Amino acid sequence: MSLGSGKFLNRLMGKSLKTEELKSEKLSVFWGLPIMSSDAISSVAYAGEEILWVLVPVIGLMSYRYMLYASILIVLLMFMLTFSYRQTIDAYPSGGGSYIVAKDNLGTTAGLVAGASLTIDYVLTVAVSSCAGTAAITSAVPSLLPYKVGITLLLIVLLVIGNLRGVRESSKLFGIPTYLFIASVLFMIVWGLIKVYFIGYKPAPVFKIPEASGSITIFLFLKAFASGCTALTGIEAVSNGVPNFKEPSQKHAKMVLALLALVVLLVFGGISYLATLYHAVPNSQETVVAQISQQIFNKNIMFYVIQATTALILVLAGNTAFAGLPQLLAFMAKDGYAPRQFAKRGRRLNYSNGIIMLGFLSCMLVVIFKGSTHYLMPLYAVGVFVSFTLSQAGMFKRWVKNKGFAWRHKAFINGLGASMTFVTAVVIGITKFIHGAWVVFILVPFVVYIMKRIELHYAEAARELKLPMDQKPKKIDFTSQKRYVIVPIDTLNKSFLKALNYARTISDNIIIFHVSIDDDATKKLLNKWNQYNVDIPIIVKKSPYRSIVGPLVKFIESEEYAAGPDDTVTVVMPQFVVTRWWGNILHNQTSLFIKTVLLKRRNIAIVTVPYIINER
Amino acid sequence: MSLGSGKFLNRLMGKSLKTEELKSEKLSVFWGLPIMSSDAISSVAYAGEEILWVLVPVIGLMSYRYMLYASILIVLLMFMLTFSYRQTIDAYPSGGGSYIVAKDNLGTTAGLVAGASLTIDYVLTVAVSSCAGTAAITSAVPSLLPYKVGITLLLIVLLVIGNLRGVRESSKLFGIPTYLFIASVLFMIVWGLIKVYFIGYKPAPVFKIPEASGSITIFLFLKAFASGCTALTGIEAVSNGVPNFKEPSQKHAKMVLALLALVVLLVFGGISYLATLYHAVPNSQETVVAQISQQIFNKNIMFYVIQATTALILVLAGNTAFAGLPQLLAFMAKDGYAPRQFAKRGRRLNYSNGIIMLGFLSCMLVVIFKGSTHYLMPLYAVGVFVSFTLSQAGMFKRWVKNKGFAWRHKAFINGLGASMTFVTAVVIGITKFIHGAWVVFILVPFVVYIMKRIELHYAEAARELKLPMDQKPKKIDFTSQKRYVIVPIDTLNKSFLKALNYARTISDNIIIFHVSIDDDATKKLLNKWNQYNVDIPIIVKKSPYRSIVGPLVKFIESEEYAAGPDDTVTVVMPQFVVTRWWGNILHNQTSLFIKTVLLKRRNIAIVTVPYIINER
Repeated sequence: MSLGSGKFLNRLMGKSLKTEELKSEKLSVFWGLPIMSSDAISSVAYAGEEILWVLVPVIGLMSYRYMLYASILIVLLMFMLTFSYRQTIDAYPSGGGSYIVAKDNLGTTAGLVAGASLTIDYVLTVAVSSCAGTAAITSAVPSLLPYKVGITLLLIVLLVIGNLRGVRESSKLFGIPTYLFIASVLFMIVWGLIKVYFIGYKPAPVFKIPEASGSITIFLFLKAFASGCTALTGIEAVSNGVPNFKEPSQKHAKMVLALLALVVLLVFGGISYLATLYHAVPNSQETVVAQISQQIFNKNIMFYVIQATTALILVLAGNTAFAGLPQLLAFMAKDGYAPRQFAKRGRRLNYSNGIIMLGFLSCMLVVIFKGSTHYLMPLYAVGVFVSFTLSQAGMFKRWVKNKGFAWRHKAFINGLGASMTFVTAVVIGITKFIHGAWVVFILVPFVVYIMKRIELHYAEAARELKLPMDQKPKKIDFTSQKRYVIVPIDTLNKSFLKALNYARTISDNIIIFHVSIDDDATKKLLNKWNQYNVDIPIIVKKSPYRSIVGPLVKFIESEEYAAGPDDTVTVVMPQFVVTRWWGNILHNQTSLFIKTVLLKRRNIAIVTVPYIINER
Repeated sequence: MSLGSGKFLNRLMGKSLKTEELKSEKLSVFWGLPIMSSDAISSVAYAGEEILWVLVPVIGLMSYRYMLYASILIVLLMFMLTFSYRQTIDAYPSGGGSYIVAKDNLGTTAGLVAGASLTIDYVLTVAVSSCAGTAAITSAVPSLLPYKVGITLLLIVLLVIGNLRGVRESSKLFGIPTYLFIASVLFMIVWGLIKVYFIGYKPAPVFKIPEASGSITIFLFLKAFASGCTALTGIEAVSNGVPNFKEPSQKHAKMVLALLALVVLLVFGGISYLATLYHAVPNSQETVVAQISQQIFNKNIMFYVIQATTALILVLAGNTAFAGLPQLLAFMAKDGYAPRQFAKRGRRLNYSNGIIMLGFLSCMLVVIFKGSTHYLMPLYAVGVFVSFTLSQAGMFKRWVKNKGFAWRHKAFINGLGASMTFVTAVVIGITKFIHGAWVVFILVPFVVYIMKRIELHYAEAARELKLPMDQKPKKIDFTSQKRYVIVPIDTLNKSFLKALNYARTISDNIIIFHVSIDDDATKKLLNKWNQYNVDIPIIVKKSPYRSIVGPLVKFIESEEYAAGPDDTVTVVMPQFVVTRWWGNILHNQTSLFIKTVLLKRRNIAIVTVPYIINER
């Protein structure tokens, strides 16, 4: 559907791909790991920090011990999820996101709740990740702080363009930084441990640790745990995107999932441990990772490498959402629960409408929250864990119902997964409720309602349009039909004549119709018409309120010219086509408006006869 | 053209008016004075302050003497202009704005330069006045300072609504505050003089007067004078709007102009004199007028009355622009130099498109400049004086050329006016050039260029459309015409059948055309078509790049079905009409897109057959 300015589009988006080229756009394990897991891996950059934000203001120095406990719990939860999702990949070779698994096994509403929760979370992922990416940049270069919203928006736009170019190219484009991040962070962790345990460096916190103002409570600990659970967002992406892998896609997907768990264990565990060793203090000027690396590397080149790769991977984390949401929307669109446009592949064979919508919504969030992740965090993660729970519960029910090989073992794993993620979802929901999670509890039912309305609409439209095979085209009896053709006139010019000429080819029962909004102009027209002297009747109606469409509709409805219930009145309208794009601004778009109104009548056909004006 | 939601519109805008009701919407002298002059009268609220902004930082206490000199010069200039414009009103009973006078006597380009300058200045007037109005409000209630942009935008929106309601009602709505302002300021002036000269009050400046850092220079004085000239903006409105007055409109307009001059003399002169007596110091927290009234009234009720009426009249000053610009644009549109829509009267008989555009542009300016008048001021007034000069020069040339009664005397007055306003324009241009006036020097030629392009476009379109009276409708020979009718098909449903039925009424040469973008869907369609078993050929074209319009256009162009140069190919398209407004979002708007592309071909007629889906 590309027209004009194709060159620029080609340069920006890459050339159009044929439908047959779909197969070659698949991921290997090596490139699949970074593109499917950058979200999960990158979240360590803020998950640890979010835990400390909860603990440090209350229990001061004690925070670091409880942070470690919370991190261990989160890593355990992650391994549980990894095992559960391996089973999902086995059971759903064509992609088993929560939406599909829940819909399949628990029914439509459960599926839609999972779908809605994920949709919201994907949008938040892009907003949060790109804001956090900007925070990493401004931690290294504080003079950029005033421009953080602009920087964040630019990052999102780059993501949109990269993703519009297509899956495989984006994985290469986005894969390298992920590997760079993993390597540089692992190097920092190893060097940080050596520095303390072998060289004997005594950590000197960059910021003062506040005095404890209270003591640890179960609620506080759960809140810290809930905040850290953001680290697990994005795991879903692998099982949702099974069809994106090279054949054998299930095997490749499972390998990527296992590798992902390993990397998160090393990176998240390592950074949490370093944070306790080096006593990083969360604040709004410098990120926790920046504080740690600053102590380890003394602001030498490695400090900047860490900041740069952190920024990059955070931005690319948003990319997981760009890989996940358009696919999810396409699934839902195919089932009729989302507008059909989301199921249509764009010029580069990706679901371009989903990509563009995701970019737009996340930019809105960034602008509204002025580029601060902190306000968005409480909304985040609830949705992910709701969808985790529904997906695991769906798998559990599937094993129990279908039985099959080793079904008890499989049901146990998914059942445990469902229980754990359910408890986590409840914990997150309760501890973060007043801070913003309530928004999700309103938004999800609302989105589910909209999705059901959309499905209803499509179903009704399909029913109304369904053609019984015995309803054949009508026999035409050219003599009995009155077939009025109305040609509206404003000025007697070539464009009108062209419309009139066409009208005469389809009927000999023509009425010229003029709506008078200016007496002088009408007089002039009638004089000219008489002078023109052709034997076709003209009818003039005065329009005191200067509306053109009103009198026309009234005339069509009026008894003497009314068509029978099966007859169609044809209105032939000249349309002025200007070749210059700005030309259309200069003409009253009356004919367009008239058409829109007339289209709402059943027994009408509107003929548009273009008259093209070529300008030099 | 009002459809649906008419009740809300009626409530907001007043009911639609018939074209015949135009006459009753005219102004008397009593209501004409406030509506035509609020700009000129209100500018005293900032004109004096702008003079002090230039002088005080340099020459300190000495400023007040030179402020008085500048004010006297400005008042003299105003009287000169009043005399000049009285002659314009006499000569141009149907409204003699600078655009018309300059175009009439000096040629099109001069007219357009005046028109462009005025257009820019009218937009600035609205932005500057509403910002200044907000400043008067925040001077009285400092806690509102953080919301100044929002307040300013709200004020503009109210102005737009008021003006959309129509001329006469807006004059009453807007007239009373102007009189209140005049009364309360005159009271303040009288009481301020009594307090000093009779009661013996020794003025105690609210803010400290800065030490002089330099001495007066001619350039500095001219700059101060130039800044004060903003007081004269808006005088133009009266002569531009002669037709808005009740009959005899010329006499009434001249009376209003004389009264206007008197009021400006009293109010501007009085406030300037008070500022020198009470030593007001310009700053960003409190306006000069606020400082004066604070000393005179000790923050009693009268202080707040002054602030409130100042705020009101400043906002209403923007109203002068709302009375002036739409009329100016309508004049230019009638001559073809602006889009025709500006010459169309809205439901309340005013030029609603001009009103809406003015509101939109000034809101943009307010947002961009964050509600601070100070940055906009240098752009202001240059345009007004350029148009003054052109208008006076035009009048001068008119008298010299036409001669007539007492022409020497008249030519002398307008010639003197032209010279004085020209000198002023040069002074403003030079002294404010680097502060922003340069923008105007770029913008005016650009706008003039656009206006000329528009005129060229309309002229070319009219020439191409002109119908020679001997070119009659074609004789139709029903037998010789091939008249192909193409009916595109996507799904075999009722909507397609309706289109097909219509197609059969206009031709027996029908081709069903299908663009295949999905092999499975196409197979299904063809099976169904064979099963449907009607004797009409179907043609299928594969579209590898998933474009529907490309193969269709190619097919129309293809040799075997090509129409002769005079034949027309008809494409009949079913259009899915959904009664719910949001329904359209849910359907691929492919048919709309196809129509837009097909319309660019000469030998085509597009028939739209609506199929209406009523939802419960």
